[in-house]
Amino acid sequence: MSITVPKGYQAAALAAGIKQSGKPDLTLIYSEAPASAAGVFTSNQFKAAPVMVSQKQIKSGLCRAIISNAGNANCGTGKQGMDDAWAMVKETAKVLGINQKHVLVTSTGSIHKYLPMKNIIPAIRTLALKLSRAGGRDVARAILTTDTRPKEIAIKVGGYTVAGIAKGSGMIHPNMAPSTGSGQATMLAFITTDAAVPRPLLQKMLKQAVENSFNMISVDQCQSTNDCVFALANGQSNIKLQNSKSQKKFYETLEKVCIYLAKEIARDGEGATQLIEVKVTGARNEKEARIAARAIACSDLLKCAVYGHDYNPGRIFAAVGSTSAKINQGRMKADMKFGKKETVVTCDLGVGKSTAVAWGCDLTEGYIRINAKYHT
Amino acid sequence: MSITVPKGYQAAALAAGIKQSGKPDLTLIYSEAPASAAGVFTSNQFKAAPVMVSQKQIKSGLCRAIISNAGNANCGTGKQGMDDAWAMVKETAKVLGINQKHVLVTSTGSIHKYLPMKNIIPAIRTLALKLSRAGGRDVARAILTTDTRPKEIAIKVGGYTVAGIAKGSGMIHPNMAPSTGSGQATMLAFITTDAAVPRPLLQKMLKQAVENSFNMISVDQCQSTNDCVFALANGQSNIKLQNSKSQKKFYETLEKVCIYLAKEIARDGEGATQLIEVKVTGARNEKEARIAARAIACSDLLKCAVYGHDYNPGRIFAAVGSTSAKINQGRMKADMKFGKKETVVTCDLGVGKSTAVAWGCDLTEGYIRINAKYHT
Repeated sequence: MSITVPKGYQAAALAAGIKQSGKPDLTLIYSEAPASAAGVFTSNQFKAAPVMVSQKQIKSGLCRAIISNAGNANCGTGKQGMDDAWAMVKETAKVLGINQKHVLVTSTGSIHKYLPMKNIIPAIRTLALKLSRAGGRDVARAILTTDTRPKEIAIKVGGYTVAGIAKGSGMIHPNMAPSTGSGQATMLAFITTDAAVPRPLLQKMLKQAVENSFNMISVDQCQSTNDCVFALANGQSNIKLQNSKSQKKFYETLEKVCIYLAKEIARDGEGATQLIEVKVTGARNEKEARIAARAIACSDLLKCAVYGHDYNPGRIFAAVGSTSAKINQGRMKADMKFGKKETVVTCDLGVGKSTAVAWGCDLTEGYIRINAKYHT
Repeated sequence: MSITVPKGYQAAALAAGIKQSGKPDLTLIYSEAPASAAGVFTSNQFKAAPVMVSQKQIKSGLCRAIISNAGNANCGTGKQGMDDAWAMVKETAKVLGINQKHVLVTSTGSIHKYLPMKNIIPAIRTLALKLSRAGGRDVARAILTTDTRPKEIAIKVGGYTVAGIAKGSGMIHPNMAPSTGSGQATMLAFITTDAAVPRPLLQKMLKQAVENSFNMISVDQCQSTNDCVFALANGQSNIKLQNSKSQKKFYETLEKVCIYLAKEIARDGEGATQLIEVKVTGARNEKEARIAARAIACSDLLKCAVYGHDYNPGRIFAAVGSTSAKINQGRMKADMKFGKKETVVTCDLGVGKSTAVAWGCDLTEGYIRINAKYHT
């Protein structure tokens, strides 16, 4: 299911003793044919080793395999961490018999711990033997840390499919860009399609879709050192995006997948009981609409008010007023509409016609409990 | 006590029915002689009416009285709110028989509610009759909202005294500046001295002291619409700051008062059990040291770790890495030292020699409880 719905993808997961819980924690996604590869990475200056390695690897433009672990971010681990990330890449290439340049690597979990490479290296061979067309579901579960549920989707459009999985629940305030580099909880998303998409087009579309989805969510304003989103397009459906209409359709599907996964991350934010959707209108330009929407979604005071179903639009005004987005104090309007599991917050800045949407979640005692004592 | 320790100041507080609790909520601080007046105000674009009024008033350079209420921020109240703030100023000038230009006004409490002016106007006359040299303590209590205790200090230096009171517990992320403008919980501080300090010097010193104190604290990253700090110097000690040495001594005392009050606000942050002191070293310049220190103090993940006494320096690296402060990933160091009521967090950025200190508090279930249902 999910990422193995598109043709030509296999996946597998197993427990390699990285998570303290003993649950599956090492995963492999495999494309039977070389796939165009696009990626965006955290802009955190403090970068995990796998982020630095994958930023180098993605330059080949092609990918056959993504090797990932959860339970350990391999971050703040110095030269040893870099060696370990490269060792994961090399072993994956070796057991699959593929070019080393076509392997991406990610990690998520605690910072400042060395990976248990004695377990991981032999497990990679076992993973390769376990690869199957049914493995997507297992991978969607194994990449999780504090998440309470898997996040997966597959959308069929004409003759091809766009699918994705994601993880993320805390330390969620992504700000990912294609070329700049970025643990603990982190957001990761892997998107697969069997459409044929040239690499530059895929990268351009992924960047735009991420801007409107993952880069518009926040759980706790804490940007991770490990955030990554990868998109692979292996062309196994034999469908090419031959004109601007078919490209537009593909982009819309890709964005739909990204927005679905991003909202699922916000909805499953640590301790959350409510998804918050923030709709900003009346901004001077799109950039300011985005700044205002995300500032509202980030306000701890507003998040507490949503948790308590306490109607308090003053907190919306205060949140927007503290940003650089231009407002008209006399014409601003704001509202909160509480649902059972979703709250919609609206704010019109009263100065223009631009709009943006951001997503977050309420702030509850559950977030405190999870993060006062963090264990994966 | 406190602000009425310096010579020539009187104060009074009473209950005017603004706080739902029925506690004292209207206060008057009076200087028997015209005092040099300096002020800094929130930079939130969404400004409360009393902020806009006091920004205008402070331009006279002199102050005789500060009229303040708690329980209602008089923010988002449009023209009516402006009329009400001016009415408070005018009534205060009238009952005291002083120049209207020499009255400052502040409010704190809920946003989007009109002040109960029917109660307030007659209460101002009663307040004037209650003024006394012993009234400072009552005022320190009446300005509070969600604070659990008053914050007050008086330091005698040579022949004069510098004293101050403050309030603030939630919606605390001050960023105050002299000329730019800015409810709910808010930070307010009133500083009095009987030293003689020319207005331009007082303004310059207050700005600098606030940069190193109130502008370096954060409880919840939420900047209020109502933050104000005022300093009055009425010269009643007959001590003048005649040379650079005496000016330096005065500045150091003023900064000590501001830092004490700022730390008291952070320590009394909504739901807090711990004061967090963040010391950044090894930054490229002071600006970046300040950015890094405050980012660490603001991290919800770090604040939860402090609450749980969970040693987790990875969260320090992640917080600093997401700022614009230059770091050397290989040379960075961070540490956490838990005390019973104070945690010291240190971080060396590994790139230079500049330092900064910021203060915050832990994030607990108490913060959630207070802000899921907010009532003053």
